[in-house]
Amino acid sequence: MTEHDLIARIIPQLATNKETILGAGDDCAALDCGIPDYLLLFKTDTVLEGKHFTSELLHSNDAYRIGRKAIARPLSDIASMGGVPISALVTLGLPQNFVPEEVDALYEGMNYWANEFGVSISGGETVASPVYFLTVSLVGKFPRSRTLPTRGAAQIGDALFCTGQLGGSLQSEKHLDFTPRIREGQWLVEHFPIHAMMDISDGLAGDLPHILRMSKCGAELLAEAIPIHSAAKKSSALDGRSAQEHALCDGEDFELLFSLPSPSAVPLLDAWKVRFPSLKLSCIGKIVNQDGITIRHRNALHVETLRGGGYDHFGTSV
Amino acid sequence: MTEHDLIARIIPQLATNKETILGAGDDCAALDCGIPDYLLLFKTDTVLEGKHFTSELLHSNDAYRIGRKAIARPLSDIASMGGVPISALVTLGLPQNFVPEEVDALYEGMNYWANEFGVSISGGETVASPVYFLTVSLVGKFPRSRTLPTRGAAQIGDALFCTGQLGGSLQSEKHLDFTPRIREGQWLVEHFPIHAMMDISDGLAGDLPHILRMSKCGAELLAEAIPIHSAAKKSSALDGRSAQEHALCDGEDFELLFSLPSPSAVPLLDAWKVRFPSLKLSCIGKIVNQDGITIRHRNALHVETLRGGGYDHFGTSV
Repeated sequence: MTEHDLIARIIPQLATNKETILGAGDDCAALDCGIPDYLLLFKTDTVLEGKHFTSELLHSNDAYRIGRKAIARPLSDIASMGGVPISALVTLGLPQNFVPEEVDALYEGMNYWANEFGVSISGGETVASPVYFLTVSLVGKFPRSRTLPTRGAAQIGDALFCTGQLGGSLQSEKHLDFTPRIREGQWLVEHFPIHAMMDISDGLAGDLPHILRMSKCGAELLAEAIPIHSAAKKSSALDGRSAQEHALCDGEDFELLFSLPSPSAVPLLDAWKVRFPSLKLSCIGKIVNQDGITIRHRNALHVETLRGGGYDHFGTSV
Repeated sequence: MTEHDLIARIIPQLATNKETILGAGDDCAALDCGIPDYLLLFKTDTVLEGKHFTSELLHSNDAYRIGRKAIARPLSDIASMGGVPISALVTLGLPQNFVPEEVDALYEGMNYWANEFGVSISGGETVASPVYFLTVSLVGKFPRSRTLPTRGAAQIGDALFCTGQLGGSLQSEKHLDFTPRIREGQWLVEHFPIHAMMDISDGLAGDLPHILRMSKCGAELLAEAIPIHSAAKKSSALDGRSAQEHALCDGEDFELLFSLPSPSAVPLLDAWKVRFPSLKLSCIGKIVNQDGITIRHRNALHVETLRGGGYDHFGTSV
């Protein structure tokens, strides 16, 4: 049984009192729990030695970057709901022969983003474990006066946007040092009628299908509009796969992907340049009626269809 | 470096934005985060195969009791603040050869208390691990209109109470099947001026010193008033240690320990009998000026002093 099968098996069991959960299936849970003015956001995420970071990094002077990634990942999920993070709890898995200075470094990294975004680290515990792991649980809030962006809220005709530049995150080590888009997410839901939103963690080709499936629609992307990270171009030079394929499939970008009504597209781009002048925002396509993802090129003679999505299932057809 | 040393090392690092944390050092964090009418309560707790439950139990038909314990422990912490639990996230550590039916059973157990107390299980994830573990993070709320009970709030002259009966929890397997005192905790802070409150997880002798140290006071217990569980008497018959020593030191009772002004003691006992007729409530002593814990016997000729506290440091002197 794969992890995916397991999740499918336990999802029905997760349905306990599900009427209070608005964000089920989204990047984090949104809880309607009788608190005035706010919904609560709630998310947990684990990084594991050997899977999300190497032992070499842990034992280097850069171990703080692991702590930074451990808290940045669930912060990115709060960001993708346009939420305000409040507090974190940390469960730290430690082998018997752990090095105290490495634990200090992990906390240094977690405190980096905690301080940046006004998040308290309010507790936690240590657990004996053969390898290091960090589980960070985050609680946040979302004002009821705004509309909660969810994966299922995209509408046909919406313009589709993403922040930053995609691809090459593992190669460039952006996956350790990325900035959770907390401020951008809050600003978006405050000023624009955002429909669907999520963070891109499994690549645009892996994550956009989540929005399309839950919103029961398709997407048409403009190839030249997809923002390609310089690291994706480097990766392309190394392995011969196209830079665009890296941008679509590499994963661990932790940028925001969202849709909103197309009349808001130009006002958004104008306002964005003033508010976030140093972060690229790209209109990469639109939400359409036809299922699946089509990638159009400017010359309009060459059309690709994304099948499956995710790392291993990238296919093209003319 | 022991786990205790480690915690001492990282506590200063946990102080990030600590002005928002009211319950630091208490059973769970209480967060003042700009939400009207309520504080948020936040707690995470892990149970680990081989430490908190046996592999035999995991592979038996009773595996659901492990899930029940995993969520009951942090629920008990919310109860000890008089809080209302809202939602849980579950991180499940699974070995490669895990048995899906055992995972089902763990969720069955967690859902048992989740349903009982209206808690949603709103998400989580699975992690590869050599042994099973369950990390449950809980968020709850506490009305600002009431006074938050904390370990540091006991006052000289307070009457000291505990719920239920103490001792023999591991022997009787109460540690798997205990009821978190959620309803009792909420009722107490709603109807009576509770000062200090916590749950007894390391034994009365291990936990009462936390209240005394943080409240800068001592306690005088009446030996005959300490409610001794029948399992403590059985344990005494087996190992020759007194039943009282088992009641004081065994741990994993998960009963409430609290203090309130002595004029409220009799009204509390009367109201309790009407509201919770099937659960014993005992006035076990009082808060005094003199440091430490003294145990008086009815005949007043025999006085014991508890030193150290906890499992291994039980000492008596006449």
